[in-house]
Amino acid sequence: MPYSQWASAEAARAWLDLRSAPPGASLPADLIALRRANSQSMDKMLDDVRRRYAVRITSKTLGGVHTDVIVPVDGIAPGNQNRVLISLHGGAFIWGAGSEALIQAIPIAATSRIRVVSVDYRMAPEFSFPAASEDVAAVYQALLKTHGPRSIGIYGCSAGGILTAQSVAWFATHGLPQPGAIVTMCGTGTEMGGDSAYLSWLLLGVNVIPPAGEPQSIAALPYFRQADPRDPLAFPMASAALLAKFPPTLLLAGSRDFAASSETVMHRRLRELDVEAELYIFDGLWHAFMMHPELPESREVYAIIGKFFDRHLDRASAASAEGGH
Amino acid sequence: MPYSQWASAEAARAWLDLRSAPPGASLPADLIALRRANSQSMDKMLDDVRRRYAVRITSKTLGGVHTDVIVPVDGIAPGNQNRVLISLHGGAFIWGAGSEALIQAIPIAATSRIRVVSVDYRMAPEFSFPAASEDVAAVYQALLKTHGPRSIGIYGCSAGGILTAQSVAWFATHGLPQPGAIVTMCGTGTEMGGDSAYLSWLLLGVNVIPPAGEPQSIAALPYFRQADPRDPLAFPMASAALLAKFPPTLLLAGSRDFAASSETVMHRRLRELDVEAELYIFDGLWHAFMMHPELPESREVYAIIGKFFDRHLDRASAASAEGGH
Repeated sequence: MPYSQWASAEAARAWLDLRSAPPGASLPADLIALRRANSQSMDKMLDDVRRRYAVRITSKTLGGVHTDVIVPVDGIAPGNQNRVLISLHGGAFIWGAGSEALIQAIPIAATSRIRVVSVDYRMAPEFSFPAASEDVAAVYQALLKTHGPRSIGIYGCSAGGILTAQSVAWFATHGLPQPGAIVTMCGTGTEMGGDSAYLSWLLLGVNVIPPAGEPQSIAALPYFRQADPRDPLAFPMASAALLAKFPPTLLLAGSRDFAASSETVMHRRLRELDVEAELYIFDGLWHAFMMHPELPESREVYAIIGKFFDRHLDRASAASAEGGH
Repeated sequence: MPYSQWASAEAARAWLDLRSAPPGASLPADLIALRRANSQSMDKMLDDVRRRYAVRITSKTLGGVHTDVIVPVDGIAPGNQNRVLISLHGGAFIWGAGSEALIQAIPIAATSRIRVVSVDYRMAPEFSFPAASEDVAAVYQALLKTHGPRSIGIYGCSAGGILTAQSVAWFATHGLPQPGAIVTMCGTGTEMGGDSAYLSWLLLGVNVIPPAGEPQSIAALPYFRQADPRDPLAFPMASAALLAKFPPTLLLAGSRDFAASSETVMHRRLRELDVEAELYIFDGLWHAFMMHPELPESREVYAIIGKFFDRHLDRASAASAEGGH
């Protein structure tokens, strides 16, 4: 099939590379070895990201959870002085701490000129659901001591997009206020499925049609081994009552991402409940493409995220925000 | 490939019917015979639509152009007394006047309780671009005598979605004010292309991979035989200056529609210019699915359109609208 003429030349080249060595559609037995291998390949990508974007990174424990705090060397933009973003990395709830987390956090901190807190949440195989939701809630509560909830945004890609949706569902059921806005990319508050769960793999030349294989199942990931697949804290789309409490939500995926359908359906469910939600689909792009700042489409994503948070997050400090809400 | 689990049971059945007798990917030689055949099949569908929705239909000449004016027998909603929608039917700029136009106009008039003017614009093979744009402009100018521009909305599906985008480009270059909002479904201000131009046909079992065939080209339609494919009045997406003048725009398609990619790309281009635009993608649904009110997804579309126009159209009368803007 011809490559989309609406994707960039850079994306067309990167797609050919991806198709020549497609990722596996299922997990190997040794998850720790997988984590190590993925981490090494991400270390190289991080070097490129750090050359492109000048930021300062500080390790900080917030609510008992390890985080990296990223600030642009250009300084925080005047309108963002009292705002902070929580970045939740991807990696199937198995890998992604360290380099991958920084690759996601750095371009947003630098292009939006905003403080970003990247959370080193607990993952499988050592831990299971809802350990990561608890960690995000602990970091969020620590930030609430110095920020109004509506001055805080949360975003994530892949597992981080799923965890972003799970986190606001967790807040809603644990007496915590909602943040000002969230972004779920390449993964959101639902199981994978729909057309993209098959088409993405077929376009990569990987056969996942049953009985040879099944598309990704989030519920089948090791992290969810103790979770009920009907638990709306794991899959919030199942609960209209929880969805109705979502803050303004940006949903985003490439058309060749296995998560594209999940983003489009979640968007419809949120809009049906009159939750402010915006959907973007990038024709021809694939899962987690925005981890590659060399793609023009990724830089478009950073700008979209920046504008979205700027439109929805309070500029006020915690003290005045408390008065205002 | 399994059918999307996120589409309705009604859609799953209708998809099987469509796949067993897929539409042709190219036009026959006798366009008048094609128009007649399509018109006959639409007559039957219209009977069903009229049974579902109680409306009054009046023929009216506006600006020298034949129109049908559709009003709900329940009456116009209080907030819609001074509002009017222009409906532009599909049919490849060849067919669609009469039954198909009414099938598009009636559910919106009835569910939104609003006046809808369905325009019988000139088409191929008798006429060519920009005849239809001129007709829409003539009807719009006639309505401007009794309505503020921001109390008028325009929507269309397929060729009607393309014509909707062309119309606002036409207004912008012919000294006419912009309407309050527009909706482009299953076709918008650009050539077809991207992933969906191929995938939609492959999923239907129709081979359009070159050299056996090419996906639809709007520029190759008989209506555009005298048009320059780079003319932004025909393909407004080519001109950022024109796009920047677009009113709030709702873009909508099924994921299996050959026009899906064109809608997603147009949405990105509009949002880059900070035009208010909203994208919806219906997983598993196909080209012009919303012409079938028996599908729950179609009724979801009618509600989305109703809310969108209600959010964006002025409620004021022409006189007070003139004062207000």
